Amino acid sequence: MEAMTEEKILSFFQGCIPNDFSSRTQTQADRILRLFAKVREELLQELQKIEGAEFKLDTWKRAEGGGGVMSAISEGEVLSKANVDISIVTGKVPKAAVKHLHQAAKITTSLDESHFNLRVVVMKLNDGAEVGWYGGVMDINPSYLVPEDATHFHKTLKDMCDKHDASYYPRFKKWCDEYFVIPHRGEHRGLGGIFFDNLMSQEEGNFSFLESCTKTIIPAYLPILKAHMCDTYSDQEMAWKQLRNGRYTEFNLMHDKGMKFGLQLSGFRKETLFASLPLTAMWGYKLDPEPGSREDELVQVLRCPREWA
Amino acid sequence: MEAMTEEKILSFFQGCIPNDFSSRTQTQADRILRLFAKVREELLQELQKIEGAEFKLDTWKRAEGGGGVMSAISEGEVLSKANVDISIVTGKVPKAAVKHLHQAAKITTSLDESHFNLRVVVMKLNDGAEVGWYGGVMDINPSYLVPEDATHFHKTLKDMCDKHDASYYPRFKKWCDEYFVIPHRGEHRGLGGIFFDNLMSQEEGNFSFLESCTKTIIPAYLPILKAHMCDTYSDQEMAWKQLRNGRYTEFNLMHDKGMKFGLQLSGFRKETLFASLPLTAMWGYKLDPEPGSREDELVQVLRCPREWA
Repeated sequence: MEAMTEEKILSFFQGCIPNDFSSRTQTQADRILRLFAKVREELLQELQKIEGAEFKLDTWKRAEGGGGVMSAISEGEVLSKANVDISIVTGKVPKAAVKHLHQAAKITTSLDESHFNLRVVVMKLNDGAEVGWYGGVMDINPSYLVPEDATHFHKTLKDMCDKHDASYYPRFKKWCDEYFVIPHRGEHRGLGGIFFDNLMSQEEGNFSFLESCTKTIIPAYLPILKAHMCDTYSDQEMAWKQLRNGRYTEFNLMHDKGMKFGLQLSGFRKETLFASLPLTAMWGYKLDPEPGSREDELVQVLRCPREWA
Repeated sequence: MEAMTEEKILSFFQGCIPNDFSSRTQTQADRILRLFAKVREELLQELQKIEGAEFKLDTWKRAEGGGGVMSAISEGEVLSKANVDISIVTGKVPKAAVKHLHQAAKITTSLDESHFNLRVVVMKLNDGAEVGWYGGVMDINPSYLVPEDATHFHKTLKDMCDKHDASYYPRFKKWCDEYFVIPHRGEHRGLGGIFFDNLMSQEEGNFSFLESCTKTIIPAYLPILKAHMCDTYSDQEMAWKQLRNGRYTEFNLMHDKGMKFGLQLSGFRKETLFASLPLTAMWGYKLDPEPGSREDELVQVLRCPREWA
């Protein structure tokens, strides 16, 4: 992969932060871009080691302001699909309360069966005030239930959250369970994780929490990926995974707010938006699993989320 | 397949037409069910001949009124997925203008790369009046452009339409092109066909048009299916078909009104609703076809629908 280090990413995004924000907001935005660039680099290094192949790098500029850096393996041997993406959007916001500036930086990935997305939104209001907040989600979506994996993942997130605020994990775990619902299936999308939004960027503790989230990506996801990368699977197990990918697709296309927001942004790159979908998916007619089967074991948890940590 | 003849279907749906409709409406509804049952039987016979395998039959009753008869091959050798379905919905409608009765009969199929759906809706208004209308769609969605097929399909529909009203084909072809749009892709879903709605059921000529539509299903679709059922294909061609299936899925999950209506009906069977999705689909990152390739040839027409008849 063409090297795209922290400094190069920052210079790529230079000019994306509108000039009429205060120097304080400029500094904050710069700090977040630096943080995201660092995480992206570390994660890519780890994933390339696992895959033994390089990620392809793709950059683009949006006419309305902003752009992105996307690194993707479309069809790796181990990672059936992986991408790591930093993007920024700036532009006018057609809302009475907001003057005309809007800046969002986002780092997101969709690895096989797992997903994270950390973001910051900054707005300048009509009265000149600047507001900003952090949001994010880290969750897993396996096709088969491996309780040790779910426990490891949730416990890693809980330990990280508890260092900041004992109320975070229970609140953000619940928020995640409530968000990733596929109502017409009566199922949750996956085994959950944490979901948060509206953490005001003025509070230094919130930046510190965002930073902790970025540091938790590798210890939370990679042990699970490594534990299963050499697993063999039958045709039936692969078909089941494809059906689960179908449900994931239903959620993302029908209910995900990020997808709806992206589609409304003129000039936002569709390839980036749809990179959140699985590589392949399947729909069948009456393929509900046998009661008591391993497939059914997963579905039971998707119907009634469990406490894992 | 367990035989489900016209008479058996009518007896299965007995009681689905609410008693407090006038005998005239009852007779009309009975006539439509008879028509749909006949088409279903004929089409299944033809498809079973092609597939050399029997369709599985599935029936269900909905607690809120209505039910359905679904016959499906999930993974045939020739038909990668096919189903033919008649369903009826009855129930209260939470609209001021409507008293409390609502009855819809629908016949629909999703064959590989093609799709039709003919329906009738009957309502009893607060003032005791009964209104009903017909609607329908017949269209094709191939992965590669075969101009002779598109011409055959559209010409068959046009000839049928012209026997009723010279304005029908141009109006309904345009309506179809306008309906099957995937806005975020800047593409139409397929090569179109006809789409109509709001044809009042009191007018005898409209029933006659609906009847002609049912008689056109076999001559419009089957020659195309037969012409290509023994075609061989490369891995690359199959991958392209999977990507096209992904776009089809995006339309059905994000934009189709029938899907939204079905999801809002409590107790409506999800298996029936999601049977409209392709068996398998794929999403990729930046897989736009090479300019001038056969894949690109299709995309050009999806961007700017053509006149075929």
